[in-house]
Amino acid sequence: MNIYFDNAATTKASAEVLEAFVSVAENNYANAASLHMPGLEAERQIKIAKHSIGTVLGSSGDDITFTSGGTESNNLAILGTALSGTRRRIITTKTEHPSVLEPIETLKIKGAEIIYTPIDEHGVIDLEAFRQNLSVPAFVSISHVSSETGTIQPIEEIGRIISQTCQKTIFHSDGVQAFGKIKVSPQKCNIHLYSVSAHKIHGLKSIGALYVKRGVHVNPILFGGGQQKNLRPGTENNQLAASFQTATTTATNSLNANYQHALGLKKLIWEGISKSIPDAFLNGQPIETASPYILNISFLGIRGEVLLHALEDAGIFVSTGSACSSKEAESKTLTAMGLGQARAASAIRLSFSKHNTQHEAQHFITILRDIVPKLRLFAKG
Amino acid sequence: MNIYFDNAATTKASAEVLEAFVSVAENNYANAASLHMPGLEAERQIKIAKHSIGTVLGSSGDDITFTSGGTESNNLAILGTALSGTRRRIITTKTEHPSVLEPIETLKIKGAEIIYTPIDEHGVIDLEAFRQNLSVPAFVSISHVSSETGTIQPIEEIGRIISQTCQKTIFHSDGVQAFGKIKVSPQKCNIHLYSVSAHKIHGLKSIGALYVKRGVHVNPILFGGGQQKNLRPGTENNQLAASFQTATTTATNSLNANYQHALGLKKLIWEGISKSIPDAFLNGQPIETASPYILNISFLGIRGEVLLHALEDAGIFVSTGSACSSKEAESKTLTAMGLGQARAASAIRLSFSKHNTQHEAQHFITILRDIVPKLRLFAKG
Repeated sequence: MNIYFDNAATTKASAEVLEAFVSVAENNYANAASLHMPGLEAERQIKIAKHSIGTVLGSSGDDITFTSGGTESNNLAILGTALSGTRRRIITTKTEHPSVLEPIETLKIKGAEIIYTPIDEHGVIDLEAFRQNLSVPAFVSISHVSSETGTIQPIEEIGRIISQTCQKTIFHSDGVQAFGKIKVSPQKCNIHLYSVSAHKIHGLKSIGALYVKRGVHVNPILFGGGQQKNLRPGTENNQLAASFQTATTTATNSLNANYQHALGLKKLIWEGISKSIPDAFLNGQPIETASPYILNISFLGIRGEVLLHALEDAGIFVSTGSACSSKEAESKTLTAMGLGQARAASAIRLSFSKHNTQHEAQHFITILRDIVPKLRLFAKG
Repeated sequence: MNIYFDNAATTKASAEVLEAFVSVAENNYANAASLHMPGLEAERQIKIAKHSIGTVLGSSGDDITFTSGGTESNNLAILGTALSGTRRRIITTKTEHPSVLEPIETLKIKGAEIIYTPIDEHGVIDLEAFRQNLSVPAFVSISHVSSETGTIQPIEEIGRIISQTCQKTIFHSDGVQAFGKIKVSPQKCNIHLYSVSAHKIHGLKSIGALYVKRGVHVNPILFGGGQQKNLRPGTENNQLAASFQTATTTATNSLNANYQHALGLKKLIWEGISKSIPDAFLNGQPIETASPYILNISFLGIRGEVLLHALEDAGIFVSTGSACSSKEAESKTLTAMGLGQARAASAIRLSFSKHNTQHEAQHFITILRDIVPKLRLFAKG
């Protein structure tokens, strides 16, 4: 690939991740539910992986359930918990990932009262309005980092407000774009459920996890052989577990260095653009407060998809929003932030990894300076 | 591993499967939902894999939905279809896999009337009783091959009876232990939904598929980014898809040879046992009619788990039943077949792959002849 700026969609699996996967596949392919030695060894590998991943979340491995990815983790958290007991209210934002918004939407039919708590023009929730919505026990699902804009929600304050206001409320946070990239402590933030995924941090696709705080009851959404304490049946995958462990360890060991690297790229690109391309707008929080891994910009007058394909012709791969909403004509997230149709339809998202270079960033700016005026001219016809 | 006779639990991924996986992971790691070229290429790979897998089922790839494995395929088929429209009756057997029985059980609360249609002492359904149960439109879930005994259900006759008796009935078959091992044509058998899995045929864990006949409406059970025609959201995995394709092609290219090889092993072992070890009983259909890949035997007087661990000490890995019910004290499947508690508690399952050898089979018999009398003596105390 040429220049890949779509790392929030997925990342390249690292060599050591593939190595861990293949090594386990070759050396112990047993089913972790089997009672014989290789089965127990597979089970042990999975336990170690859970422990390792749990440590990053400041917890033991006992509270980690493996899933097929972030989408399933979010579905399990929401469908398995939101309406249990007497809870009927669900509080979320309009800027969540489809794998949060869609399962919530299905709960309407079961009597859920869905409240989209207000956000400001940066996509950050209004804490006072949020507090007002906690008048009855609720299920709260608010992402840690927005996949479209990189906006970081004040999850620590949200957790504090919940514990001060309504102890029976359950707090779920989609951490898929945060895990392994920025520090998180679900315990410190009073988070009950936290979703993570491997393939956003140079791990492999098809494995994610849900952190479930001890004492929180989650109903399974798949049923079968009783694996993972009956919470998630199906043959457990010790190969993917080991590779997820490797990806997690590698990411967290160089979390600060990677963060600074991404921040450097983001600043470089945004400064390059804002200095030389008119009518370009940064969407989301200011650079200093957002996740450095995601940069969302609108180039007024050019449809995001048109710019995406023009960049593609130059060997640069970006997206218009989250990959999971790539077929939408304009960003619902940006619309919900009140940025208006023009900005929502003209946005592209860049997302970085440790493999991107300053040279790539410079080259990208050069290309942009060339094609943006041309496309605008063309658009005016 | 020493002698691995637990291939119905999972198989060793073949070298070419791992190669396909790693090659795709290294060459195109993009998200198939991304709009740029690498994304489209990933989407194309997935489409090709679906086509290839669909071909084995005598269909196009359009009717294939990838899932995280057999458990999810069964859950999707059952939870997504069983009670749609006015259907309330579910017909199944007591010998199904937990990933069939458990989701069905959860539908009771939604008003499902569950009928466990009678089976004979070989585990084969009574077709006349089955026909009687079709007096109203129903959802039928009957496995193709039993994971515990290798019993093959008369799915063609079942399909014929359904189409003759009640056209509104939906027929699901769990084909996890059949796919790539014995021939199947869902269309010929009037099957609407057919579940398959990769890791039972030297593919990798965490990918399976559900065949859905055109025109059959299945409601999703996970919600999100609209992938796979809204039926199964979540980042699609082109690496696992390509490796599943490789596993499928390899398995079907040598389906007959593998079948004869497994049959040879099964006959050799059963003849060796029946000639020299008293009170050993074959569970399931006679050798000639069952799947050759699975051999279930009871050694009266020895608990299955005890024999499993004694064999393990000799470096031979077997199971007591399906891996997904490995924690049960005795086999519910064998009990449902009316074989009595003594046989249900003393059963072990061997399951073969193309990698097992006649030498291994001979060695197994030698070991058994040694340890079975000792264990029986010990059991009598």
